[in-house]
Amino acid sequence: MPRAQPRYRGLMSLAASDPSFDTRVFRFAARMGRLKASAIREILKVTDMPDVISFAGGLPAPELFPIQQFARACQEVLANDGQAALQYSVTEGYPPLRRWVSEYLARVNEIQCTPDQVLIISGSQQGLDLIGKTLLDPGDSVIIENPAYLGAIQAFDAYEAQYINVATDDEGMIPADLLRVLQEAKPKPKLLYIVPNFHNPTGVTLSLRRRKEIVAMAAEFGIPIFEDDPYGRLRYAGEHLPSLMALAQSRNCIYMSTVSKTIAPGMRVAWLVIPDRELFERVVPAKQAADLHTSSFTQRAVYTYAKDQAVFEGHIAEMLPVYARRRDLMIESLERYMPEGSSWTHPEGGLFLWARMPESVDTEELLSLASRSKVAFVPGYPFWVNRVVRNTMRLNFSNASDDMIVEGIRRLGDAVKAYLAGER
Amino acid sequence: MPRAQPRYRGLMSLAASDPSFDTRVFRFAARMGRLKASAIREILKVTDMPDVISFAGGLPAPELFPIQQFARACQEVLANDGQAALQYSVTEGYPPLRRWVSEYLARVNEIQCTPDQVLIISGSQQGLDLIGKTLLDPGDSVIIENPAYLGAIQAFDAYEAQYINVATDDEGMIPADLLRVLQEAKPKPKLLYIVPNFHNPTGVTLSLRRRKEIVAMAAEFGIPIFEDDPYGRLRYAGEHLPSLMALAQSRNCIYMSTVSKTIAPGMRVAWLVIPDRELFERVVPAKQAADLHTSSFTQRAVYTYAKDQAVFEGHIAEMLPVYARRRDLMIESLERYMPEGSSWTHPEGGLFLWARMPESVDTEELLSLASRSKVAFVPGYPFWVNRVVRNTMRLNFSNASDDMIVEGIRRLGDAVKAYLAGER
Repeated sequence: MPRAQPRYRGLMSLAASDPSFDTRVFRFAARMGRLKASAIREILKVTDMPDVISFAGGLPAPELFPIQQFARACQEVLANDGQAALQYSVTEGYPPLRRWVSEYLARVNEIQCTPDQVLIISGSQQGLDLIGKTLLDPGDSVIIENPAYLGAIQAFDAYEAQYINVATDDEGMIPADLLRVLQEAKPKPKLLYIVPNFHNPTGVTLSLRRRKEIVAMAAEFGIPIFEDDPYGRLRYAGEHLPSLMALAQSRNCIYMSTVSKTIAPGMRVAWLVIPDRELFERVVPAKQAADLHTSSFTQRAVYTYAKDQAVFEGHIAEMLPVYARRRDLMIESLERYMPEGSSWTHPEGGLFLWARMPESVDTEELLSLASRSKVAFVPGYPFWVNRVVRNTMRLNFSNASDDMIVEGIRRLGDAVKAYLAGER
Repeated sequence: MPRAQPRYRGLMSLAASDPSFDTRVFRFAARMGRLKASAIREILKVTDMPDVISFAGGLPAPELFPIQQFARACQEVLANDGQAALQYSVTEGYPPLRRWVSEYLARVNEIQCTPDQVLIISGSQQGLDLIGKTLLDPGDSVIIENPAYLGAIQAFDAYEAQYINVATDDEGMIPADLLRVLQEAKPKPKLLYIVPNFHNPTGVTLSLRRRKEIVAMAAEFGIPIFEDDPYGRLRYAGEHLPSLMALAQSRNCIYMSTVSKTIAPGMRVAWLVIPDRELFERVVPAKQAADLHTSSFTQRAVYTYAKDQAVFEGHIAEMLPVYARRRDLMIESLERYMPEGSSWTHPEGGLFLWARMPESVDTEELLSLASRSKVAFVPGYPFWVNRVVRNTMRLNFSNASDDMIVEGIRRLGDAVKAYLAGER
């Protein structure tokens, strides 16, 4: 398995560059041999430009971070509980934060869990890694949406997982295709990994009817559901839908969420909810072997900030209209500037939308062209599992100002039109 | 490999208890089937006692943490660089911290490395995990001191490593035994893992002559050295010795250290130095898959605190005499209260000493007896690799007050004497 580690020198300098570029996608594409050297050179050129408009990242808007209130929380922690905040602590997490998570999930996601089913982790990526480490043997298969969240594939790859892709549409994973997969897959898949709310990369949300169908199918076939919900609180339209965990009444489910999109990602604080005691007790030593525990300090700072419901919910309420406006602006700009034959998702929340160009457009080639106009996006092909689709792209709308969104999409539209006119 | 994960329900409640007990050792012993249910019950009883004197942890003294100065560093970071501190960042680490590490290691450890050879990690445990993940295939062997640091074994176990133990004495790993191992081992071991300064659990320091011999042997046999140096700055006696990395002029070496013992462990900030570019470029994606990056915030807070050399070195200078006095008090108390036939190491630094009881003492049984007198330690047998040694124990001297050290060792001496008199 360690030998499965990639060797792609050419891309290393990317990682040291601006994190507003989703270098993980490009690294991954390179690793899979799906990114050409010419594309790498283009990306490197783009990431070096100071004035590029980038829709290529997955970053929340830093100007919305609650910096002052978080600073107050840090001071409160260090003044009142400094010794414990700077000391080693237990692997499972800071008990008041675990309790807060269980109460929070009951309040916002109808999830009934006890604090001792909550494991605090160092960001959602660690949860993907720990579940992969604990549940997956080499060759085991994971059912995954297509296109899929690359961070999950990157984590599960380390354990030599295989992927069974289920088609998605504007309502998320298609139950009929899942049923086919469940009936055909031999041996039985180990996990059904799903991002039901405002999916990365597609932005789509799994409908309530499908949630119920998928929960029922997973139960019938005895496949554990791993529900990854980083974006659930960022809803700008439509009605809140219950989590799969809630619909399944916690049976054979793992649920994960984070403060990365509600407060900020820089602290690396997230959580797994694992109602199955036997599984919980296998994941804890895996975490202990991986990093002992998540920072005692950042756990307390997050708790101290979030425990004041008026502050925490007030902050979310302030963020939502800003993101909603950026999403609206991006959709309006796409309508205005994109040529005939292109389409895009209309996400009800989250950070991303997914655009489909006319069939003849290869978005990897388009990126080269777009970079000359100083606009960047993520070509869609690395997100496709076991399929080659060349004409899709992921666009992030959370991390650019209103003006940049309009101007960036205008440039992008021009680049598409130039591409269609034969320019490369 | 995931199936190698342990299942030991009985010990889980330990983890939720006081971290001043080294629950990882007990978990590990349970996992290896080396801890009896009766011992588990005893330990649980001990960890529930509020007034127990524990030498069982591995914690630095929290009363020495530089809380106010660290709080000022946090405020400075959030006031001046709050958006970046709370945002996602690059996997390799915060560039000024990487630069600081390279300058710091040149200053204190004669290590010549560039900032781009430094990878910031979420505590040393993560470095063990990432090196295991990157270098070890199932069945690969790692050369390790005997007794050994358990955190390393716990990390490497996840990758199904085998261990080749090399005997140690009061000067650390014995070169003649290493030579025998190097000549006999087939296939060639993948790694020589070593803690040269104030070893955990033994407290011993590898002598300069042996450092040179071991570096030469590793070079001759082409075995990479993984030098783990968490305690190096905590020297209370004797002269600073150059790191193996420095002696090897960085050839085929990995070096790891941390701020956990110089500032505080609660932030989870440490670093790997990997001069081999090809290896560095394999470890970075492993870290990205494991947790994306170490907290942008704690990295900046640590940097902001440590960059003021007068503050950082002044803090270390204040800690050293406190720890030195505790070490001296523990040694004096052992001399006063321990029966004939027992002995212990005289560490020149670090947090631990290692005591050997008369042959007839089984320290696991002794722990039960000691717990009745409300004193705790870590039985030594889980630290022994491929050997059964029953009469050793690890004693931590950093995390108890002067009075507690004297009183605790008095109780422990009485317990040993009672044990020798037949009490169980």
